[in-house]
Amino acid sequence: MELLTSLEQLQAFNQQRSPQQTVGFVPTMGYLHAGHLSLVKAANQQCDLTLVSIFVNPSQFGPNEDLSAYPRDLDRDLAMLAEYKVDYVFFPDVQMMYPPGYKTWITVQELTDTFCGASRPGHFTGVATVVLKLVNLVRPHLMFMGEKDYQQIVILETMLRDLNLPARIVRCPIVREPDGLAMSSRNAYLSETERSQALCLYNALSLARMLYTAGERNITILKAQMTALIEQSGGKPDYIAFVDKDTLEEVESPADNTRILLAVHIGRTRLIDNASICDNYR
Amino acid sequence: MELLTSLEQLQAFNQQRSPQQTVGFVPTMGYLHAGHLSLVKAANQQCDLTLVSIFVNPSQFGPNEDLSAYPRDLDRDLAMLAEYKVDYVFFPDVQMMYPPGYKTWITVQELTDTFCGASRPGHFTGVATVVLKLVNLVRPHLMFMGEKDYQQIVILETMLRDLNLPARIVRCPIVREPDGLAMSSRNAYLSETERSQALCLYNALSLARMLYTAGERNITILKAQMTALIEQSGGKPDYIAFVDKDTLEEVESPADNTRILLAVHIGRTRLIDNASICDNYR
Repeated sequence: MELLTSLEQLQAFNQQRSPQQTVGFVPTMGYLHAGHLSLVKAANQQCDLTLVSIFVNPSQFGPNEDLSAYPRDLDRDLAMLAEYKVDYVFFPDVQMMYPPGYKTWITVQELTDTFCGASRPGHFTGVATVVLKLVNLVRPHLMFMGEKDYQQIVILETMLRDLNLPARIVRCPIVREPDGLAMSSRNAYLSETERSQALCLYNALSLARMLYTAGERNITILKAQMTALIEQSGGKPDYIAFVDKDTLEEVESPADNTRILLAVHIGRTRLIDNASICDNYR
Repeated sequence: MELLTSLEQLQAFNQQRSPQQTVGFVPTMGYLHAGHLSLVKAANQQCDLTLVSIFVNPSQFGPNEDLSAYPRDLDRDLAMLAEYKVDYVFFPDVQMMYPPGYKTWITVQELTDTFCGASRPGHFTGVATVVLKLVNLVRPHLMFMGEKDYQQIVILETMLRDLNLPARIVRCPIVREPDGLAMSSRNAYLSETERSQALCLYNALSLARMLYTAGERNITILKAQMTALIEQSGGKPDYIAFVDKDTLEEVESPADNTRILLAVHIGRTRLIDNASICDNYR
């Protein structure tokens, strides 16, 4: 496992690799958990070389968000990655990615303004921009991303296609704690009480899926049931949305291809989760 | 000379070329003139393969601009290119570059909002986006662009650097008619009277250069002299700007590294031109 900390080292990696070798790329913000490691495993299986990036990208944090508090522990991350066949870890600093006079930003119309984009203005522009930069630097064949950030995946797939980039995203399923809570670096913020409250995201998704399977097709009712469950558990919903799984457009009545997206405040921590409304689609 | 009209043909070009061959790229909107041909010559000299694209990019035209009237003549263009060592001509259609559901746009902060960007809102976002798409498709080593579109070159250089793309721009000098008018496909719009009026852009630049060389350092006076000359010639200035040649920031007093940019309406045609304020910088 080789640590690359400069653009020059990354260029050397690009010059050394053979055009025949496929490169699997796992972009992360570090503070790794089993969700990230499932992406590394998938990259190992599907590609010749695996490159993991660790970069807490400031441009995707709003002015009042948790950029400075975001958990960081490079040694811990490297120790976790050493257990896997990771060929390269790219660990740039902020100055290298956004030098003085940096000016270029990517927007993906409509998709960046809804749901998490509405709650976090500028967030997805920051995400799209840093991922495009990383893709240009790493030039991967496949990029492995977790479906926990479902809106992010749809935005990035759209960007790669629109900009005629050859890289493709491999969507990997959400990895959950034994009780159902989706793995997230932000779970580290939760107190013991909040940790049990946080289960309401998964429980609300499960409830909606159950009601849908039982025949409920009224979105107002489905949302009200989810909201009640979340609030009873001590959570505060940011948004609950029933969307077309491909376009992310909100649907008027749910169908098998509907995806449920939600964000919930647990104390001062904002968590997200999502699920297909039924098992006909993953 | 091979004509590529589909993304598949362009992919085949990318697969066939050897990594050792350098590719020189000349992006154009067609209706070629000697300015474009000087770019082709420079690409021939500096690269192993030369690829010219011809695409009238709708996203860089405003709703009240001349998209539909913009002159097009592929046969004429191909005949002109056949006189040079051009290996490939890429001629995509609009549907291929902007398929239904297209959503991704590039902005280059500050630089896209001034001068031509102020007069033509969205223009440079369209330019930056299509050039990024073309660069991703063609993957050139060098891209050859004329300094007539000076603001455009600075924006695109910033974009390539910010997005960590390996391609570099080779700036080529403005090619002028014998009397000094900068070559432009839009010169085809000019009536005989307007054609002689249009010389006021070059004459105004020459006047400012002469006054600067003679010691004039007052921008208000320089602009007033240029404006008077343009208006006497029947032109209507859109903007006249004295800027730092690298940052495009307007300067308070001119120095050798000042570039003069201007846009002028001649009848219904809007023309641009620019020059270094003195010969110490080209």
